[in-house]
Amino acid sequence: MSSRTDLTCDFNRLYADAVGSMGLEESELERFADRATVVHRAVFDAVPADRPGFLRLPDQLQAAQEIAAAVTADRRQFKNFVVLGIGGSALGNTALQTALNHPFYNFLPANKRGGCPRIFVLDNIDPDLIAGLTEALDPAETLFNVISKSGQTAETMAQFLYFIRLLSDRLGDEAADHMIITTDATSGPLRAAADTLGCRSYAVPDGVGGRFTVLSPVGLISAAYAGIDIEGLLQGAARMRERCQSASMMENPALFYSAAHYLLNTVKKTNISVLFAYAQRLKDLADWYRQLLAESLGKRRNLDGDEVSLGVTPVKALGVTDQHSQVQLYVEGPRDKAFTFLTVDSFAAQVTIPSRGKIPEGQDYLAGSTFNSLLDAELRGTELALQEAGRPSCRITFPKVTAETVGQFLLMMELHIAYSGLLYNVNAFDQPGVEAGKRATFALMGRAGFEELRQRILAEKGRADRIMG
Amino acid sequence: MSSRTDLTCDFNRLYADAVGSMGLEESELERFADRATVVHRAVFDAVPADRPGFLRLPDQLQAAQEIAAAVTADRRQFKNFVVLGIGGSALGNTALQTALNHPFYNFLPANKRGGCPRIFVLDNIDPDLIAGLTEALDPAETLFNVISKSGQTAETMAQFLYFIRLLSDRLGDEAADHMIITTDATSGPLRAAADTLGCRSYAVPDGVGGRFTVLSPVGLISAAYAGIDIEGLLQGAARMRERCQSASMMENPALFYSAAHYLLNTVKKTNISVLFAYAQRLKDLADWYRQLLAESLGKRRNLDGDEVSLGVTPVKALGVTDQHSQVQLYVEGPRDKAFTFLTVDSFAAQVTIPSRGKIPEGQDYLAGSTFNSLLDAELRGTELALQEAGRPSCRITFPKVTAETVGQFLLMMELHIAYSGLLYNVNAFDQPGVEAGKRATFALMGRAGFEELRQRILAEKGRADRIMG
Repeated sequence: MSSRTDLTCDFNRLYADAVGSMGLEESELERFADRATVVHRAVFDAVPADRPGFLRLPDQLQAAQEIAAAVTADRRQFKNFVVLGIGGSALGNTALQTALNHPFYNFLPANKRGGCPRIFVLDNIDPDLIAGLTEALDPAETLFNVISKSGQTAETMAQFLYFIRLLSDRLGDEAADHMIITTDATSGPLRAAADTLGCRSYAVPDGVGGRFTVLSPVGLISAAYAGIDIEGLLQGAARMRERCQSASMMENPALFYSAAHYLLNTVKKTNISVLFAYAQRLKDLADWYRQLLAESLGKRRNLDGDEVSLGVTPVKALGVTDQHSQVQLYVEGPRDKAFTFLTVDSFAAQVTIPSRGKIPEGQDYLAGSTFNSLLDAELRGTELALQEAGRPSCRITFPKVTAETVGQFLLMMELHIAYSGLLYNVNAFDQPGVEAGKRATFALMGRAGFEELRQRILAEKGRADRIMG
Repeated sequence: MSSRTDLTCDFNRLYADAVGSMGLEESELERFADRATVVHRAVFDAVPADRPGFLRLPDQLQAAQEIAAAVTADRRQFKNFVVLGIGGSALGNTALQTALNHPFYNFLPANKRGGCPRIFVLDNIDPDLIAGLTEALDPAETLFNVISKSGQTAETMAQFLYFIRLLSDRLGDEAADHMIITTDATSGPLRAAADTLGCRSYAVPDGVGGRFTVLSPVGLISAAYAGIDIEGLLQGAARMRERCQSASMMENPALFYSAAHYLLNTVKKTNISVLFAYAQRLKDLADWYRQLLAESLGKRRNLDGDEVSLGVTPVKALGVTDQHSQVQLYVEGPRDKAFTFLTVDSFAAQVTIPSRGKIPEGQDYLAGSTFNSLLDAELRGTELALQEAGRPSCRITFPKVTAETVGQFLLMMELHIAYSGLLYNVNAFDQPGVEAGKRATFALMGRAGFEELRQRILAEKGRADRIMG
């Protein structure tokens, strides 16, 4: 059962009969089918408490309606909306804005934005960036949304301390009206701050890791402030979850995608996965996926404790732009990559390349055509060039870029990662490898309890003869 | 001889005594020194006509002064400046804007931009993007700069046909005042168009491939319109060229960088090079370098005609942002990466994290410190985590991000690529692998002479049972 509003997944160019030795044999996939079924059942047939938490989020329609109602009453009050967050508290927000807003949304006059605020996602602590934002936006016209489940994220807490002080100095008690706190429902420093300030707050759901929270208040608040249809996002995700009920990988797109990419990595030895978005709107979905893949599957140890140092490196690419940057390497370089094209059947705009007036010599093949046709021809040209060079690719097509289709894509990729964790026998939901860096940061910032590490780091000096300049 | 305005290159963490088996032995580097010297001499001691063309660009100071003078007289006339170009005609422009403008430049009021126009680089043909720009910017207030040496670049010519028609319809004969054409000095469709229109034009220098043209009018015009010190860019590049005169790789940072990365790829089998910018301003330099590395060294055949399918895949990362996205994989995943950190000693701003008021529990280690210190601590934490995990890295430090230091970096990386082409024995200055895709595009667009290919492409159909949706 499919519909004209469903994503389409074309797997033809993953097969050996299309791309040669780097492609997959039908028999190879058939032999894998039983294992894929086991993996599917481990995800879906687990008792509810053991299922990945993100699978529950599409059911939170009532919560989404409440968010939409609260935001609609409020969003014309502010000229700017700034997300303070990083990683899973930022990437989904950016992806939704890029996918579903006008491509120059922040440059439109307010009336062309439906009175909604401009949206900024501040996901770094670069001092020039912080100072620059402070200079460019008037805090009195700005609503901030700080997002951290633990309330312990150093970058986000530094931003929070800075902007809440700025607001308090400027606005006194009204500062609380300019801050929304999204954090743990009951505990942590940000929950305490929400109580003290008396500002609006939302709960990050339990049991859902940061990088899987885009369809919770973490990602939905900023979307709602920009007028994005957040119920549509959840409905799309629910639709994909329904399409992926089948335990047969030949009927379940997330399962087939996972099996094929597992085989491309482990059997064909591709260690790079390129998500190649052929639409400007889809480019930051590729960035969101970059975290999802890297943090979930990039693991030193498997679930048996063996040292495996696994992981595929995600690369985001943008068509047609990167045809003039990366495609040379993709077509001629090492056979170390699997490609996924993200494409759009119907763009919002149909734009004609004019044929009136003097057309420069040799350019008449363009005149009278459309940018839509040119983009499609270039996509097909790139797919074909990769195929002829023996590089495996597949294509995920959005009929249109809507809240529903974006929701489908988000859930498909989350499910793909949950399946892949089981295939690789790793924990897809933790990130132990970032702890060493965090401890070093605490030590260098002088946090209590890290004095010894601090001494050790400060004692370490490189050799001067290995430094030029 | 170094100076406090020179880039510093710290190579300590590339060595085996710092990072273990993935690092380089001193003896291994010493054995390589003679080969590096040969490569250096092949670049610098060639007769002038055989030297890479980009090495000449820093000497074009007078041309830069003329550009600056012409632009200064003109730049307050326009509210917007839009580059129409792709690949090498776009990436350098974006990199310069991001590095050297205010981080929210386009959102500042005109008086805070010194009256300079907002800058947009339109490097895609997505119809929603084209339509969106048309809706967001008034062409009567906009100056366009179309850039293509050949005047045959399909994407750029489609953009040119579209916007020159829009301007003519709106402004009649004044349209020519809103278009600057940067193309071949004497030939091609855009040169002819410049003559017909009578608009301002600049020449793309001969003998310099697109991806090496950032320090020519290709990259300098938009920079000058934003008030960037383009002479400083050239002076910085000249300074790096001077620093790299030495044929000893222990004294020549571009040569050492090239030798080390060649060994990391060919001996240590890293196939991914991560350029990890720890400053928001430097992130698009990483994107510029992405093209430079991929197109120059990603080659199917070497200069002897052997099939080699070489190439390192560039990955751009942004600190601290990607600590919450990619560092888990970098620290724990496969040993397939070499890392280059781009760092800044002195940011333009020093921003304090406030210590007044109520500090949420456990966050007092942040209060009273600065974003500068936090960023530095996180950088050092990440470097240390990678070192302890045995991953090789090096660090290129900008004393400050200025036109001079950016110019140094551009030339260092271009020279690194020229050296590397000789080390790998490939042509670093062509891009034969993009031809197949271009031909397919011409065929699908109905360009004369490609009828047979068109039939062949249209006849190709995937199997329906390999499509889900």
